[in-house]
Amino acid sequence: MFFASDNSGPVPQQVLDALARANEGYAMGYGSDALSQSVADRIRTLFEAPEAAVYLVPTGTAANSLALATLCQPFQTVFCSDVAHIHEDECNAPEFYTGGAKLTLVRGGDRMTPEGLRAAIEGEETRGVHGPQRGPVSITNVGERGNVYTLDEMRALTAIAQEFGLPVHLDGARFANACVRQGCTPAEMTWKIGVDVAVFGGTKNGLMGVEAVVFFDPAKAWEFELRRKRGAHLFSKHRYLAAQMDAYLADDLWHDLASRANASCDRLRAGIEGAGLRVLTERHANMLFFEAPRDLHRALQAAGAVYYCWGSLESGAKEEPIMGRLVCDWSVTEDAIDAFVDLVKKAG
Amino acid sequence: MFFASDNSGPVPQQVLDALARANEGYAMGYGSDALSQSVADRIRTLFEAPEAAVYLVPTGTAANSLALATLCQPFQTVFCSDVAHIHEDECNAPEFYTGGAKLTLVRGGDRMTPEGLRAAIEGEETRGVHGPQRGPVSITNVGERGNVYTLDEMRALTAIAQEFGLPVHLDGARFANACVRQGCTPAEMTWKIGVDVAVFGGTKNGLMGVEAVVFFDPAKAWEFELRRKRGAHLFSKHRYLAAQMDAYLADDLWHDLASRANASCDRLRAGIEGAGLRVLTERHANMLFFEAPRDLHRALQAAGAVYYCWGSLESGAKEEPIMGRLVCDWSVTEDAIDAFVDLVKKAG
Amino acid sequence: MFFASDNSGPVPQQVLDALARANEGYAMGYGSDALSQSVADRIRTLFEAPEAAVYLVPTGTAANSLALATLCQPFQTVFCSDVAHIHEDECNAPEFYTGGAKLTLVRGGDRMTPEGLRAAIEGEETRGVHGPQRGPVSITNVGERGNVYTLDEMRALTAIAQEFGLPVHLDGARFANACVRQGCTPAEMTWKIGVDVAVFGGTKNGLMGVEAVVFFDPAKAWEFELRRKRGAHLFSKHRYLAAQMDAYLADDLWHDLASRANASCDRLRAGIEGAGLRVLTERHANMLFFEAPRDLHRALQAAGAVYYCWGSLESGAKEEPIMGRLVCDWSVTEDAIDAFVDLVKKAG
Amino acid sequence: MFFASDNSGPVPQQVLDALARANEGYAMGYGSDALSQSVADRIRTLFEAPEAAVYLVPTGTAANSLALATLCQPFQTVFCSDVAHIHEDECNAPEFYTGGAKLTLVRGGDRMTPEGLRAAIEGEETRGVHGPQRGPVSITNVGERGNVYTLDEMRALTAIAQEFGLPVHLDGARFANACVRQGCTPAEMTWKIGVDVAVFGGTKNGLMGVEAVVFFDPAKAWEFELRRKRGAHLFSKHRYLAAQMDAYLADDLWHDLASRANASCDRLRAGIEGAGLRVLTERHANMLFFEAPRDLHRALQAAGAVYYCWGSLESGAKEEPIMGRLVCDWSVTEDAIDAFVDLVKKAG
Repeated sequence: MFFASDNSGPVPQQVLDALARANEGYAMGYGSDALSQSVADRIRTLFEAPEAAVYLVPTGTAANSLALATLCQPFQTVFCSDVAHIHEDECNAPEFYTGGAKLTLVRGGDRMTPEGLRAAIEGEETRGVHGPQRGPVSITNVGERGNVYTLDEMRALTAIAQEFGLPVHLDGARFANACVRQGCTPAEMTWKIGVDVAVFGGTKNGLMGVEAVVFFDPAKAWEFELRRKRGAHLFSKHRYLAAQMDAYLADDLWHDLASRANASCDRLRAGIEGAGLRVLTERHANMLFFEAPRDLHRALQAAGAVYYCWGSLESGAKEEPIMGRLVCDWSVTEDAIDAFVDLVKKAG
Repeated sequence: MFFASDNSGPVPQQVLDALARANEGYAMGYGSDALSQSVADRIRTLFEAPEAAVYLVPTGTAANSLALATLCQPFQTVFCSDVAHIHEDECNAPEFYTGGAKLTLVRGGDRMTPEGLRAAIEGEETRGVHGPQRGPVSITNVGERGNVYTLDEMRALTAIAQEFGLPVHLDGARFANACVRQGCTPAEMTWKIGVDVAVFGGTKNGLMGVEAVVFFDPAKAWEFELRRKRGAHLFSKHRYLAAQMDAYLADDLWHDLASRANASCDRLRAGIEGAGLRVLTERHANMLFFEAPRDLHRALQAAGAVYYCWGSLESGAKEEPIMGRLVCDWSVTEDAIDAFVDLVKKAG
Repeated sequence: MFFASDNSGPVPQQVLDALARANEGYAMGYGSDALSQSVADRIRTLFEAPEAAVYLVPTGTAANSLALATLCQPFQTVFCSDVAHIHEDECNAPEFYTGGAKLTLVRGGDRMTPEGLRAAIEGEETRGVHGPQRGPVSITNVGERGNVYTLDEMRALTAIAQEFGLPVHLDGARFANACVRQGCTPAEMTWKIGVDVAVFGGTKNGLMGVEAVVFFDPAKAWEFELRRKRGAHLFSKHRYLAAQMDAYLADDLWHDLASRANASCDRLRAGIEGAGLRVLTERHANMLFFEAPRDLHRALQAAGAVYYCWGSLESGAKEEPIMGRLVCDWSVTEDAIDAFVDLVKKAG
Repeated sequence: MFFASDNSGPVPQQVLDALARANEGYAMGYGSDALSQSVADRIRTLFEAPEAAVYLVPTGTAANSLALATLCQPFQTVFCSDVAHIHEDECNAPEFYTGGAKLTLVRGGDRMTPEGLRAAIEGEETRGVHGPQRGPVSITNVGERGNVYTLDEMRALTAIAQEFGLPVHLDGARFANACVRQGCTPAEMTWKIGVDVAVFGGTKNGLMGVEAVVFFDPAKAWEFELRRKRGAHLFSKHRYLAAQMDAYLADDLWHDLASRANASCDRLRAGIEGAGLRVLTERHANMLFFEAPRDLHRALQAAGAVYYCWGSLESGAKEEPIMGRLVCDWSVTEDAIDAFVDLVKKAG
């Protein structure tokens, strides 16, 4: 009953196999090996973007920060949700990589509304040289509270960005999960609806640590390469990043893993809602936020369920509702889900 | 005949096995898993430094830049060799991570002399608030031109740093190779002779991409953790970094791999010197710089030898001496070495 | 009828005289002249802080940014009002000078409440290495919407900062105006109630461009000096900064100028409230925010009144209420105020 | 006998008068006042550059750092003399403002040779993404050892920069002195020979603290404005910067002051060379470096001469030659010079 994070499970055997396969003989470093080149080509094909510049980095924070640094001047501000990972969970990495740009928070949770985004952008227009200048819009799909934007919802946001001439960054740490939930192609979720730079995440969906950054307009490709190196994220033995991505692309493993995780989450949601819990996430992919009395959380965790809560379980009234998060990674089993649901039923 | 770099060969089977072993079940992220903790403990034991703070990062540039950022204020300057990796090969990463500190170059190649270091430090003393302030001394062992500092040579440098109250950083991308060549322990090469922070490199010595940063004084441990996260170098699936280091430590694999690489280099040196080539590296570990006429380089490379030259092979007088670099990684075979030496004999 | 800003009026004759007086013979540069030393001493005396480190810089943004950079690590966050000058009007200078720290906004206008501050601080506690760490609390008095904190209100905020071990910065661009309004001494408004670093502003209160930064604990004095130089804010001909401050301190000119400005604002408030306008600023010093229909603003400005509005006067319903700002500098005349009030009466 | 620096003398009466003149009534802040606009226009006229973007900042370090930050990406390197002010005397301000760019030093003193510059540029070409990329060339005229580049010498350097597609920055802290020495116009010393951005210094030539930054191509004008504000160098009461520059431009005061300073230096040179001293500066403007035995320096300073030495006067052999610097500002008198020469004769 491990629902703490999708960075906690094992990687599928295909990834280990790919590493072993890549481990033959000599390969030139820093991404100039054949496997790295081929993987970039296949990502271009997957995204139907033959001109795109594609780069691998080891962490999601690196992918986001480097992409934003390439899109955003230090005297600008990035527009994002007030619970965005780039704001809450990257220890000022975007500020560091951009050289001190600001983040302007769009209030209202993990799905920005067009109204909220427009208000935030317009709020940064009135001070000339005194205030930060408007910079990129950053969208996260799947959002940090588990919600999936529909393509229409994303399109409404990118349209506003375009209206103001601002580039759009997609934080796709859970790209595959969002894509599967919407039943769309990678192209449909990105450049076809106005995304300029997308992160195609692998780490939360079964890889050891690889994210692809995809620039649909390659004009800033060389700048990104320099920023990646300067940020110490250019792997010398790049083939081992490429190998993981190689496995991810083969036979649509990325899609398969996300489908499994999402299906597990469907089962989990049905189970706990059936047991009377209130789920806060409206349109989930592989992650649920729910509310339960402190007492119930304590009982579940005492019985071996592992997940995070937003608030203290130790002290406070036992009836007070506390928010918990349940994440399904690709490897979670039906048994684990059913066992958890049973626990909820018994404890609830 | 692949001598281009020690980041080009495969990893030993033990590393793949360790990854597979680590790939069982769930593990908490970001380094709080048991394997990561155990690996840190074992590095403390290896360095005879029970109080040390130990961290894993994926690249040598990350290790150096994060360590220097923790030691160096943005208004200070780092003293290093004029061919140091941190100066020549990190695309301003140290400047980036320190927030704009300067590097003061000690002239004279990859082994700084005490006189050179002292002159550089004294040269930065006369301008009060106007000039940069003196910051850390950075030593690279093995140096970028292949030379190993003896412990006495290192001690002469750290003594000067201590005289001026400056901390000492050891760039140990080839730590194991230097250690083996000197026949000393990790402790003898670091804190016992005045090193404050050491990079214990794995990537150039058989790992996919892991370096350990060892702070012998843990006072700045938490600051380092925050800087690592802010630099986007904290792996969520940290167990896969730890697994590689686990293999590296087991049965002194790190020592064994470096011994092999150094022995290969001994054989290579004997061979090419016997064939009449002039080797520039005085005290080598696993890497040689040599000089040969442009013509000879062309012939060797045409025959299949892969290595880097410092200067153009395409244009210029055929007799002009050009510097080449030969690197032996752990996996190079005697056959490859002998084949290369034969080539030199024939072409020379 | 010029109420646009307190940076728009002339300087008093005493400042010109002091510049002329200081312009005799040779003086060593960079603040080591006698006048600069004497001015620092007198500020220490004024603040009853014999140990304080005191520095002059030319702009308020420099004063704030350099002070915050000295108090705040790049992986931390500064707590401030959501309309703070450091957030809205410094084009990311605090982010630049701190090396990429974040600003956490306390919602609710120019006077932070203890509850709001506490909630903001507690909100940054739950993510360990992932989120920014808690950094300094920045208080602005007079606030950006014209309100003065009482000493008790300030004390309630600094008490919370102290509870969490956070240093306190006071943005005192209008220090004198706040001090006069509260009838307190500089010491009472700063270190006696828990302020660690104060900006004693001169530019908005009659000087050409000088602010004093006062560190009550001199431990970081040298670091500040280096950061000031690195930020290009160390004047070579420092005596001309010192001369302005010399005039400011003589015969309590700073207090006299602020008294005049505040008294003008009292008269202005009485006048426009008497004429039926709604003033939004609750406890003013020398600046008022008020609301009036768009039409009225247009009429006032057409008749020659100069001040800023928050919103467009050109387009929109004529009855729609728009926020305007009226600032009294030391030099504004009773005639100008009365003329403006008359206008309001006629146009209203 | 004050020869310590050209930042130590008084300002001419015209500057005080201009400040008084500017101190009338209200003026919009931040450079939008009429005087600021007019001064910018007059600088465009002086430089015969009607399209140029012109900005005032208070210090030379601000002028250089902001100009370089606009020309140089953080992953690039600036080429400059190894004694350049931006390298030796700005406490890492260029590194700070550029976000961590590097400075590549051209060896050989204050006048770079074409060969030296070319070698430095070519030295940064061979490492692809690993090394810093080539950035701007920075020339200082008058140089830090007192030497003036001829227009031909400057042209030889800018030609190399253009060959490599690199922009050229001119550090003109002593612009006027160089211009006068060469008998050329500002245009001839800048855009007509390939300078892209020039600093037209006022502070060392009689102003309190104003430098003009002139971008001959205004494409990056808005970026510069944002960087100036972000660097906290945009004066709210901008008219007092403008007033100083106004005086500087009127009746070619800038030219007159520099002519006086240079003529004083001519007299000083003739005098001390006549007295047997060895002057190191070959082609001076208003500053001389000379060598004398430690004993002589001691005697001169004991007799009241004020100037800087490069090396300790307190300890060391009395015959050992020590380098000293003599700077003439506009206000130095013939009497002071003659008195100093007399001293040299007596003490020598």
